[in-house]
Amino acid sequence: MAHPSSQADSVGIVEPQVYQHPRALPLQCGVELPEYELVYETYGRLNEAKSNAVLICHALSGHHHAAGFHSEDETKPGWWDTCIGPGKPIDTNKFFVISLNNLGGCHGSTGPRSINPATSRPYGPDFPNVVVKDWVTSQTHLADALGIRKFAAIIGGSLGGMQALQWSIDHPERTHCAVLIACAAKLSAQNIAFNEIARQAIASDPNFFAGRYEAENSNPDKGLMLARMIGHVTYLSDDGMREKFGRELKSGDLGRGADVEFQVESYLHHQGRVFSRSFDANTYMLMTKALDYFDPARDAQDSLVRAVADARAKFLVVSFTSDWRFSVERSKEIVDALIAAGKNVASAVIRSDHGHDSFLLPIERYLGVLRAYLDRVAEEVNAQCR
Amino acid sequence: MAHPSSQADSVGIVEPQVYQHPRALPLQCGVELPEYELVYETYGRLNEAKSNAVLICHALSGHHHAAGFHSEDETKPGWWDTCIGPGKPIDTNKFFVISLNNLGGCHGSTGPRSINPATSRPYGPDFPNVVVKDWVTSQTHLADALGIRKFAAIIGGSLGGMQALQWSIDHPERTHCAVLIACAAKLSAQNIAFNEIARQAIASDPNFFAGRYEAENSNPDKGLMLARMIGHVTYLSDDGMREKFGRELKSGDLGRGADVEFQVESYLHHQGRVFSRSFDANTYMLMTKALDYFDPARDAQDSLVRAVADARAKFLVVSFTSDWRFSVERSKEIVDALIAAGKNVASAVIRSDHGHDSFLLPIERYLGVLRAYLDRVAEEVNAQCR
Repeated sequence: MAHPSSQADSVGIVEPQVYQHPRALPLQCGVELPEYELVYETYGRLNEAKSNAVLICHALSGHHHAAGFHSEDETKPGWWDTCIGPGKPIDTNKFFVISLNNLGGCHGSTGPRSINPATSRPYGPDFPNVVVKDWVTSQTHLADALGIRKFAAIIGGSLGGMQALQWSIDHPERTHCAVLIACAAKLSAQNIAFNEIARQAIASDPNFFAGRYEAENSNPDKGLMLARMIGHVTYLSDDGMREKFGRELKSGDLGRGADVEFQVESYLHHQGRVFSRSFDANTYMLMTKALDYFDPARDAQDSLVRAVADARAKFLVVSFTSDWRFSVERSKEIVDALIAAGKNVASAVIRSDHGHDSFLLPIERYLGVLRAYLDRVAEEVNAQCR
Repeated sequence: MAHPSSQADSVGIVEPQVYQHPRALPLQCGVELPEYELVYETYGRLNEAKSNAVLICHALSGHHHAAGFHSEDETKPGWWDTCIGPGKPIDTNKFFVISLNNLGGCHGSTGPRSINPATSRPYGPDFPNVVVKDWVTSQTHLADALGIRKFAAIIGGSLGGMQALQWSIDHPERTHCAVLIACAAKLSAQNIAFNEIARQAIASDPNFFAGRYEAENSNPDKGLMLARMIGHVTYLSDDGMREKFGRELKSGDLGRGADVEFQVESYLHHQGRVFSRSFDANTYMLMTKALDYFDPARDAQDSLVRAVADARAKFLVVSFTSDWRFSVERSKEIVDALIAAGKNVASAVIRSDHGHDSFLLPIERYLGVLRAYLDRVAEEVNAQCR
């Protein structure tokens, strides 16, 4: 059987590229990053007017490999292959799509695993705090290097949506449209609490060594596993889990209460173990803090309406009925603020049983909304070129 | 100022008592517990007909000290003092209230911290698995010893409600009424998942020593702290936490992303630390497993209607709008099954922002429902005596 990379709607085999920033980057925390690299992939072709670029911003555990395959040995495509490709909602016949690994990540961009030029050793926990605003700044540098003055669309789910919102605020003239999916203008106390529990799980793993696990030839596997399990459960919905697992047993005898393992437990253990082998704990700390700290209204007298006052983008805001970490209500707050600020905003609430994870899934109505909206965006940016 | 134990609606200073079971107890898991003790408290007076006894069943982290004070040095009363006392909803002028620490607990009843007569050392992780049915059996022995043939009411929230339901099934002739608060007929996959994450947090603490921490002069403080934090967050609601904590900072500078601690984090750390000093980790494992395994319909072809077919109790089922661990929907399943089985059932859905923890709080309408229902129960059992 042919490898799926050869299918007509696949972007095929893709190769990551590296952008090296030639200067130091001053961060919001006051620290200057002496140099940095961003690993990224592109799908589709940039048109002559350079007006058809789409930026994909990733969420907590995401990375640059959003679509296609790195080789025919890869069995799974990039994390958003359902949405990105020829004829797909983010249509690479129309758009030039850029997907990068964020600063502080652990998939190739400069982050805690990178060498700190000051010490010639990995940064580890000394990697500076990075916030959403810093990511946006670093993304503008990548855009500059690729000659992209204005993005046709900046798209992200969850933490990715926060980046799209920040783009619209910080760079109104460079954002034609911002697509905010399963997003919030700021986390709630409950959200922060779940993130903190995950961080505590990592920090209290004796193999964490206050973030210097690499120097100790160690890794906080158990802490990362717990963090992932917490994330996984809260990114699903009660109904979705009931449908998927119910109270099915993997082993044991419920009547005697002996050696019982429910399917859902076995599944979570597996997911946790896989994650703990691939994800960097310091990056996890950094990404969850960036989530917690995001609050663009803070600098505008706690008014989101004022925070978006200068935005010129058009907005699409999408949420999912069963998402309780980034609920429909949180998206509605964004929509209400954008309307109050007189912005061009469309929104869709998608019925789904799959919780926060819905934003990654091929839900027909969701893909239909994205497709319809982005098709119009493609027409708009083409019209501007003519 | 006078100590609150002297207030007219307090049961005052109370003293725990101990019931020693004179025989071995065969458990559902097939193991026989050679001997056991239950620590309990009573409030109010048993009438001559011994018809006014009320049994309070505790939840995951509860114990026998439900009302009053152990001494004037105690600043906080028992865990359900809002409900139990002279003139309160569970009125000790009318009822003789018994509250015990369950088998396997860590507050005085035989459990993992007790000496195993076979080894002359604490049971620790070798304490046998105990399920809800075993608790009910042990509670019948305590009732026998106190000369109570039939309880006027058996009342419990959460895991306590499960015990009340099991009583109505296993001992129809001994249960005049069962009050099930914030309860479920079985846990969902999501509930089990949260319990499993808490257990994993404890088990992966290197100070857990596979449950033999006492022999190692150690305690899995960090694991217990994490478990408690998970419990705490999930027993509250998103709205309740927003109201209580919002995004208030304890310290740090959000703009710079430096040294930030949110109030909600500080609160959870504190709660977790307090819990880890007082609660036994092996008991936590045992109690959460009893929660997971509870499923009375399982022995009745997965039909809750059949499971309760022989019950003769009248039922009151109470749930809270913001409780997402034991949701209104789960209570409705119980109510529907009881109705389908032709039982006498009343139910109330109480509006509250405080999640699962609502069942412990002095919510006016909730206390009013309990009071009205139990006043009628008092009349009924008095009428039977005449």
